[in-house]
Amino acid sequence: MTPPARAALEPLDAISERIGPLDADAMAIVARRLDRLTKPPGSLGRLETLALELAGIRGEPVTSIARPAIAVFAGDHGIARRGVSPYPPEVTRQMVANFGAGGAAINVLSRAAGATLVVVDVGVGGDPTTAPEPGTARPDTPRVVDARVAPGTRDFSLEPAMTAAETLAAIEVGRRIAAELAVDGCDLLGVGDMGIGNTTASSAIVASLLDRPARDVTGRGTGLDDDGVRRKAAVIEAALALHRPDPSRPLDVLAAVGGLEIAAIAGAILEAAARRIPVVLDGFITAAAALVAARLATDLPARLIASHRSAEPGHRIVLDALGLEPILDLGLRLGEGSGAALAIPVIGAAARVLGEMATFEDAGVADRD
Amino acid sequence: MTPPARAALEPLDAISERIGPLDADAMAIVARRLDRLTKPPGSLGRLETLALELAGIRGEPVTSIARPAIAVFAGDHGIARRGVSPYPPEVTRQMVANFGAGGAAINVLSRAAGATLVVVDVGVGGDPTTAPEPGTARPDTPRVVDARVAPGTRDFSLEPAMTAAETLAAIEVGRRIAAELAVDGCDLLGVGDMGIGNTTASSAIVASLLDRPARDVTGRGTGLDDDGVRRKAAVIEAALALHRPDPSRPLDVLAAVGGLEIAAIAGAILEAAARRIPVVLDGFITAAAALVAARLATDLPARLIASHRSAEPGHRIVLDALGLEPILDLGLRLGEGSGAALAIPVIGAAARVLGEMATFEDAGVADRD
Repeated sequence: MTPPARAALEPLDAISERIGPLDADAMAIVARRLDRLTKPPGSLGRLETLALELAGIRGEPVTSIARPAIAVFAGDHGIARRGVSPYPPEVTRQMVANFGAGGAAINVLSRAAGATLVVVDVGVGGDPTTAPEPGTARPDTPRVVDARVAPGTRDFSLEPAMTAAETLAAIEVGRRIAAELAVDGCDLLGVGDMGIGNTTASSAIVASLLDRPARDVTGRGTGLDDDGVRRKAAVIEAALALHRPDPSRPLDVLAAVGGLEIAAIAGAILEAAARRIPVVLDGFITAAAALVAARLATDLPARLIASHRSAEPGHRIVLDALGLEPILDLGLRLGEGSGAALAIPVIGAAARVLGEMATFEDAGVADRD
Repeated sequence: MTPPARAALEPLDAISERIGPLDADAMAIVARRLDRLTKPPGSLGRLETLALELAGIRGEPVTSIARPAIAVFAGDHGIARRGVSPYPPEVTRQMVANFGAGGAAINVLSRAAGATLVVVDVGVGGDPTTAPEPGTARPDTPRVVDARVAPGTRDFSLEPAMTAAETLAAIEVGRRIAAELAVDGCDLLGVGDMGIGNTTASSAIVASLLDRPARDVTGRGTGLDDDGVRRKAAVIEAALALHRPDPSRPLDVLAAVGGLEIAAIAGAILEAAARRIPVVLDGFITAAAALVAARLATDLPARLIASHRSAEPGHRIVLDALGLEPILDLGLRLGEGSGAALAIPVIGAAARVLGEMATFEDAGVADRD
């Protein structure tokens, strides 16, 4: 398959045609090989199902993950001024600078996973975030891409978070990043988020698309107490009552109560999936983005891998709606792509098991009686 | 701390004095640092508790896992002739050869985890297993240690599996391996097992030590059907009725219905723990060995890390008895140390988070309001 030239993207409404069901032939080849490897059939559990999924997504057996990447999308939220987070909004910008300097959790976890990290400013407020001066960056610090569509969203308790044009532009940012990573040989894409206020936006998206009361899908985020969670759910209920977005029009929902980084994540997921790159979701925010994306491409969820189950109550609900079972359950509630990074070694191990284990015949080991 | 000379081991009954509670001072230092790192307090979930545990075990903050090792102990079981496994007994020896040649799951998973693999023949039947000829081994093939105490255990449906002397000798094999790895700088020890019939021995140990009916702690092993599981549980019940080992004398239980590799694993666990090396358990067999070891050293469980929850029903019961919560739940039921190897990257990531993340002050990020 010849990759399209950089940043040459098909129209968004054509993308669902490029995201079809898994490749059953490739999966059958892998299933037969797994049963000849020197282990009881099925005894490697999730590693075996991951090897099958990887083959189904890529269209051929996958025996290593050579160039994993994590793309973290950052954006600010007007709704953050409504007391929905214990952290002030400027933390988004400060954390993007922290990513650029290599000091955040996702930097450490990407390095540990051997994954390339790309940080994308889709809509952070304040001074533009730029890469460190040449010569001052550590060799393993990530590329920080300035792709700002707007300096944050509007306060969706008062007006729609984004215009339709902003929403589409943010989606295109995510698609372009995924397309560029694909051209560079990325063979597994983890997605992550940064944005003070973005669990509120995600809960609003999920409540609308899944027709659930906000309280069912609203959690503590970075650390609200019980009163804070109740206020946050009330803010979401009021906003949905104000905008009444049509759940059958996912881009309208995204524009009304979403976020620039959430739109970009949805775009990155769609573009990577269309290029047969397995996408590793992180926590609740990336799951909300995937839910939007899945409404644009029905067969998308089979190309997604859920890295972990987060502490956010809405996360389980979205994963169930997408039919995804998380690999890890570590009580994480950070975002940034941290869970995706932690799952990469497990996914890589699944590929290597398929590629490197001996068969019963090769090893001269007796099979079952 | 000056390590003792190679293979100079204290008497076994002195070891419990060397295994005390976790170091509260080191844990307090780590707790304070974790709360200053650029993330909401507690948001890295299990990674944070692992960082605390590592400090408590080592007696100082642990910021990297530099030299992890996996020690796989192999032994044969007389009870395997009673139809308790779908695989013939010679598979133990064949799999040890497969380990030596680098083709088994644990070879792949150790390589993926960056862990040194050592395979120890404590009691395999048939021709002694030896390392490949010099020059024929792949560079990453493991050391295979011939430390055979006996050519397998006796059939414990008829007579005790081991003599007291064999049991102690097998424990000493495990202790010596752990001591040697410690001298070589090992800073995390995963343990694994290979032995056709060894889930039967492990279920018998657990049933005796925890005073549970065999059926509660007996599972499919490498793939028995329901009838097979019932027969296996009946074999165990009959053997325990025959030998009536005293559960307050764990070495008697081990001798009556245990295994050479299980005894060696118990020894390795004790010696590593006494040297403040965190021990990563694998599945049911290593948990049964840890249960024996914990009866010899009360404070041992705090120095253990449970890598995963296996598909064996008895595993959960033993982990509960030891007060351990597994990191992973991947439906594994292979043994060999496979789950331990898969958990090493998560444990390593926990250490690196502590060592490499920036603090709020360093990064200029605002803390909570």
